[in-house]
Amino acid sequence: MSGNRAVAYKGTGKVEVIDTDYPTFELKDGPGVNPANVGRQVHHGVIIKTVTTNICGSDQHMVRGRTSAPIDLVLGHEITGEVVEVGRDVEFIKKGDLCSVPFNIACGRCRNCKERKTGICLNVNPDRPGSAYGYVDMGGWVGGQAEYVLVPYADWNLLKFPDRDQAMEKILDLTMLSDILPTGFHGAVTAGVGVGSTVYVAGAGPVGLAAAASAQLLGAAVVVVGDLNEERLAQARSFGCETVDVSKGDPADQLEQLLGVPEVDCGIDAVGFEARGHGDKAGTEAPATVLNSLMDITAAGGALGIPGLYVTGDPGAADDAAKVGSLSLSLGTGWAKSLSFTTGQCPVMKYNRGLMMAILHDRIEIAKAVNAKTIGLEDAPRGYEEFDAGAATKYVLDPHGSVAA
Amino acid sequence: MSGNRAVAYKGTGKVEVIDTDYPTFELKDGPGVNPANVGRQVHHGVIIKTVTTNICGSDQHMVRGRTSAPIDLVLGHEITGEVVEVGRDVEFIKKGDLCSVPFNIACGRCRNCKERKTGICLNVNPDRPGSAYGYVDMGGWVGGQAEYVLVPYADWNLLKFPDRDQAMEKILDLTMLSDILPTGFHGAVTAGVGVGSTVYVAGAGPVGLAAAASAQLLGAAVVVVGDLNEERLAQARSFGCETVDVSKGDPADQLEQLLGVPEVDCGIDAVGFEARGHGDKAGTEAPATVLNSLMDITAAGGALGIPGLYVTGDPGAADDAAKVGSLSLSLGTGWAKSLSFTTGQCPVMKYNRGLMMAILHDRIEIAKAVNAKTIGLEDAPRGYEEFDAGAATKYVLDPHGSVAA
Amino acid sequence: MSGNRAVAYKGTGKVEVIDTDYPTFELKDGPGVNPANVGRQVHHGVIIKTVTTNICGSDQHMVRGRTSAPIDLVLGHEITGEVVEVGRDVEFIKKGDLCSVPFNIACGRCRNCKERKTGICLNVNPDRPGSAYGYVDMGGWVGGQAEYVLVPYADWNLLKFPDRDQAMEKILDLTMLSDILPTGFHGAVTAGVGVGSTVYVAGAGPVGLAAAASAQLLGAAVVVVGDLNEERLAQARSFGCETVDVSKGDPADQLEQLLGVPEVDCGIDAVGFEARGHGDKAGTEAPATVLNSLMDITAAGGALGIPGLYVTGDPGAADDAAKVGSLSLSLGTGWAKSLSFTTGQCPVMKYNRGLMMAILHDRIEIAKAVNAKTIGLEDAPRGYEEFDAGAATKYVLDPHGSVAA
Amino acid sequence: MSGNRAVAYKGTGKVEVIDTDYPTFELKDGPGVNPANVGRQVHHGVIIKTVTTNICGSDQHMVRGRTSAPIDLVLGHEITGEVVEVGRDVEFIKKGDLCSVPFNIACGRCRNCKERKTGICLNVNPDRPGSAYGYVDMGGWVGGQAEYVLVPYADWNLLKFPDRDQAMEKILDLTMLSDILPTGFHGAVTAGVGVGSTVYVAGAGPVGLAAAASAQLLGAAVVVVGDLNEERLAQARSFGCETVDVSKGDPADQLEQLLGVPEVDCGIDAVGFEARGHGDKAGTEAPATVLNSLMDITAAGGALGIPGLYVTGDPGAADDAAKVGSLSLSLGTGWAKSLSFTTGQCPVMKYNRGLMMAILHDRIEIAKAVNAKTIGLEDAPRGYEEFDAGAATKYVLDPHGSVAA
Repeated sequence: MSGNRAVAYKGTGKVEVIDTDYPTFELKDGPGVNPANVGRQVHHGVIIKTVTTNICGSDQHMVRGRTSAPIDLVLGHEITGEVVEVGRDVEFIKKGDLCSVPFNIACGRCRNCKERKTGICLNVNPDRPGSAYGYVDMGGWVGGQAEYVLVPYADWNLLKFPDRDQAMEKILDLTMLSDILPTGFHGAVTAGVGVGSTVYVAGAGPVGLAAAASAQLLGAAVVVVGDLNEERLAQARSFGCETVDVSKGDPADQLEQLLGVPEVDCGIDAVGFEARGHGDKAGTEAPATVLNSLMDITAAGGALGIPGLYVTGDPGAADDAAKVGSLSLSLGTGWAKSLSFTTGQCPVMKYNRGLMMAILHDRIEIAKAVNAKTIGLEDAPRGYEEFDAGAATKYVLDPHGSVAA
Repeated sequence: MSGNRAVAYKGTGKVEVIDTDYPTFELKDGPGVNPANVGRQVHHGVIIKTVTTNICGSDQHMVRGRTSAPIDLVLGHEITGEVVEVGRDVEFIKKGDLCSVPFNIACGRCRNCKERKTGICLNVNPDRPGSAYGYVDMGGWVGGQAEYVLVPYADWNLLKFPDRDQAMEKILDLTMLSDILPTGFHGAVTAGVGVGSTVYVAGAGPVGLAAAASAQLLGAAVVVVGDLNEERLAQARSFGCETVDVSKGDPADQLEQLLGVPEVDCGIDAVGFEARGHGDKAGTEAPATVLNSLMDITAAGGALGIPGLYVTGDPGAADDAAKVGSLSLSLGTGWAKSLSFTTGQCPVMKYNRGLMMAILHDRIEIAKAVNAKTIGLEDAPRGYEEFDAGAATKYVLDPHGSVAA
Repeated sequence: MSGNRAVAYKGTGKVEVIDTDYPTFELKDGPGVNPANVGRQVHHGVIIKTVTTNICGSDQHMVRGRTSAPIDLVLGHEITGEVVEVGRDVEFIKKGDLCSVPFNIACGRCRNCKERKTGICLNVNPDRPGSAYGYVDMGGWVGGQAEYVLVPYADWNLLKFPDRDQAMEKILDLTMLSDILPTGFHGAVTAGVGVGSTVYVAGAGPVGLAAAASAQLLGAAVVVVGDLNEERLAQARSFGCETVDVSKGDPADQLEQLLGVPEVDCGIDAVGFEARGHGDKAGTEAPATVLNSLMDITAAGGALGIPGLYVTGDPGAADDAAKVGSLSLSLGTGWAKSLSFTTGQCPVMKYNRGLMMAILHDRIEIAKAVNAKTIGLEDAPRGYEEFDAGAATKYVLDPHGSVAA
Repeated sequence: MSGNRAVAYKGTGKVEVIDTDYPTFELKDGPGVNPANVGRQVHHGVIIKTVTTNICGSDQHMVRGRTSAPIDLVLGHEITGEVVEVGRDVEFIKKGDLCSVPFNIACGRCRNCKERKTGICLNVNPDRPGSAYGYVDMGGWVGGQAEYVLVPYADWNLLKFPDRDQAMEKILDLTMLSDILPTGFHGAVTAGVGVGSTVYVAGAGPVGLAAAASAQLLGAAVVVVGDLNEERLAQARSFGCETVDVSKGDPADQLEQLLGVPEVDCGIDAVGFEARGHGDKAGTEAPATVLNSLMDITAAGGALGIPGLYVTGDPGAADDAAKVGSLSLSLGTGWAKSLSFTTGQCPVMKYNRGLMMAILHDRIEIAKAVNAKTIGLEDAPRGYEEFDAGAATKYVLDPHGSVAA
């Protein structure tokens, strides 16, 4: 148990599986660790033997070189696993517990945690509110695309599955609780989705599909998913969504054909700042396209949930405004319609318990909806590559062959 | 078009189909009409040709002689139909529109209507807030178990179906929008049902079944329905509910077997004041049984939705306290668990549009869940009798043979 | 009673008091009346003898020539008055009632009105959801800076004061119920203001001051108001607000001095699209300045209420993007902090009754907070001019000398 | 520092100040300590040197002999003080911090704490959800009417005052944050109090007065307080409340005189199970009186906040039903009005930070409202006696003479 293998960023377009340290109850110096966090004692933490750990679209932002992520940063913030060591101060989580790890690291002691805003915890990232495992500028907590990972504030952060065997049977669904299912669900909730809503989800990647499945779970009448990628749209149709191919023109017209009106009640942006244009402009980066389009097609009085990531700086952006994170938004359109907008990281803990119950009692088949595919840890580079190429697949790493077994 | 046929109360245990007046745009004197409402002009109303009109459990309270309902009161508050005449002041509803009529009559102009509390409109019932068609002490608006019925404040009250043909195909589902589906849904919502909840519904009559189906639509993980009537419990199981036979003992033990814990997150009382005892006491009237039992089995922090009717006076009650509407409640149990309680008529308008969308887009099969059965208007007496005998059936009257056709 | 006097737009920078028609229960053709509304019957309306009618900042947008408002458009949407004639279909409002008129015209019958979203009523403006009196592109309902005005859907729209004499004593406060008090209050509510909040209000015009007074009424701990105009800032200090002079630099530094932190819990934009720059850039139009600044100084997890008007097109704007209503927003900053944003017209009816109660029971002195000043109708041009020049005054027109008396 | 002095229960009607152990980071056996809690390690705790600790009405329930509290139970759950020792696992709270201690003990790690329901924490009381210091059947955590007290889960539970000197200046206000101010505020919030509400508070003891002051802070238009005790009613009038002397008859008539209607929007029960009758029956115990009266005088659509304590068993009750905690409630009255009801311990942490901000910025003068009076720890027996005799005073113990200084 003295070693560890992990997926690391190796420069633009490149990830490798490397040997790295087995975690201890201290945050040691390393690539991307904030100096103020070096040496931080983590007696409130546990060490997790990773059962599953997923590749996320937001990992791709780093791998594409769109951020200042340092070489050798260990990636991965979608972690599910078994507790193998328990820190001195952990009281309720026990060795052997099988748990989901919310991607947002939270202390469970600050004002924001007390208000359920665990996505912007004040005590884990010296730079600013909010943190995550294996992510640039998030404090330096080591990523979880690895055999073993340290989870701080374990009594607060971990969601224990009630029964180990039952959980292993649904592990490909439960692995989505660490990020994309709650993230998609948060998008739907903040877009105001309820029983009978009509919903448009921009983006058919895993978060978009999770948002669509969440909207169904919340009772939406019709869920329409838009994307440029036909394979991903087919995936959306596989569980009952309608689809719009935005390469063929504006969504409004296609919505009118589907719904009789060119508008929906609720809009979800599951794309974020790397958006590309619609219609003629398909393929060109156009960071404000999705939001402007959603303001156009969301009915007056509606809301936009924005789980898609927008950044404060984007050195790789196509134009100067986007490089400093400025978007040219038609806010007047939104204002005239009294729209509201909710942004930011999903506070996973607000939703993961209920979604776990929904999975365990067969109310949602999220692994199927996002087309989960298990691969070995050593195959991670291939997973990143295929995912970046647009595969309609959610890649789940299985470092110990636990799922395969 | 100068006549009308309608179901009337004819004394304890007795209903008959009688000849009665075709409605006009005036509320004329008649059985149960509040003197202050006699002669009221209803130019804001429309005349509806009834397509479907359901028998409700709360009609049975009157028919069983548990109220002061006058002889010849025309019954019926669950109305769906076609507009055949439009009052002078109606602007948006048109002749030919096929519509659902919320059972609560509301003016659309008072403080409560403006706050979406249409179940307690201040302007339609001279006695107190809130009104309904064909119901004792509710102002005297004529009931809708009839060929034709007057609907006041039509622009406000009516929910128009978007497409007539589409609506007729699902008419047995849509007919539930006038009362029991929103009422059950309100029970679920006020019990705090959300994605992943565990829910106990007391009572497997139509409202209980509608509450159970609503809880599923809201994303509940497990819905358990309790009743004394095995046929009704079988009906609940037919759409995926778990069941508890309360004649066999306390629900807590049976819940523990089903859920691993003797408690649920959310409790719904779909029984009301005519409750009967559990276990040994099954069959005896015990008006506080359901509420005391729900306080017992709802987990700390939970909520109770109480769509089941409680009355201020019940001359037919078994004991003196119940006769004046007093219940012996173990409020301390609820207090120690920080429970909350929501009572009252469902404000149908708050929910019916969304539920209509859910029906039209196949998200809920409410007719199947409550075992809807169409019979002719003239067969109403038989429907009342069978329903009172405990049939696991929701009786839908079809005065013009529209459904049959 | 066959004539009427009213304030009309007469071209850029110019208003005049003109002779115009006494209203009837029909919307007749005239400047700015939407063709689809010409001839509309208004039997549901009443004719109001104006007691007070205020000049609003949004009137100034038109008068400054920043819109396509037609010559002779009668202005005014902040109306309080006495009912002098009652339409045929009005049931509850009576002749002699003294009432506040919400600036948003609403039908009380559409989906949005039923959901309390009266700012985006679907039935009053043929162009798009939402309407107002005397405003460009809002359907053509005649403005209320006049002796007499027609109020449609009177039973729904009007808020009757409970006692006439009591109301006349507080008429300068109650006149703010038609728009700016609820609008400021809506800004505060949607910014999440509650007991103990710290709040920054951008803009010390009447809406900003009303938002500040509303935040106090909602229990805010500290309310800071920012503006370039020292006289208006002094007005804010007069009722206990802290102030920031944005001509002297970024609000963050000044906030840090006031609060010990450079951030507030809640941000309110009471400026809108005609914003000017801060610090060095003070005075130059910079339409995105306020929103970008608010994203900067609102703490993670906070919310922005945006009652300030943003438009879809602004022919008079300083740059091409702004001319089509596009703003260059640093959304990434907001996203990193999980901010939410609420835009749009205030749905006055949601708040006016409670605010009326607060005024009548001395819980808020809004006339004093906004420095209300009564002038005659004929003096309106002077009021427009002084207000546009930056007077820290809310001008209240008194067409019949009712307040003066 | 090896000793401690504390107020202990010494049998019906009797309290004494005793010598007791100085706390350590372990919950040792003692009067009322749950066996399952004996020996519990509390490295997450701190030791507080008490600055102020108040006598609470719920302490009186024990002292009056209405519970099974054991002799020598150390009382007191309203604690404010300075951290003098910090447990091994405490990370953010530091020695020297001046803090308010919420009366509900919570772990900050269970499902309920994560949902902000700290009043029903699952991990601190082996008997059932929820705990408190120095209270019978609450797990055995030692009371804080003492010189020193152990506070478990200190990082989670404690609210640190931002500035020590500023805090000491307002210490008599801030001491109310541990219980009665949030408890009264919770009553007001759950009764639906908002801007413009009319409110009736049953009971003018400290919680009732805190509820009244909270209702004002929330923007209520009119707050009416009812009680039998004229001195306490005078206290309510001292900060702007209206009052009703319930010994002179039913509140409805007196409300009608005050408000023009016999009803209020919001009802708060600040009395609980030891209620006494109104009018002729004044003085006799009548445990259901307050709730039945509130259902009577709360308008349709209103809500009841019930911070007053109701118990599951009351051996000292006047009748058999009350002995087992059953109340004869006219639920039908509430149901006909669509009332809702919220019971239970206030989750202090949900409100204390905002209320602290309101105190520090002079938005509420709670010490004055409840007539706070500082006495020495050794004078506690006199404080209990005078309070039980109906003094309109909130007794604040000052064990170290810190306030006096």
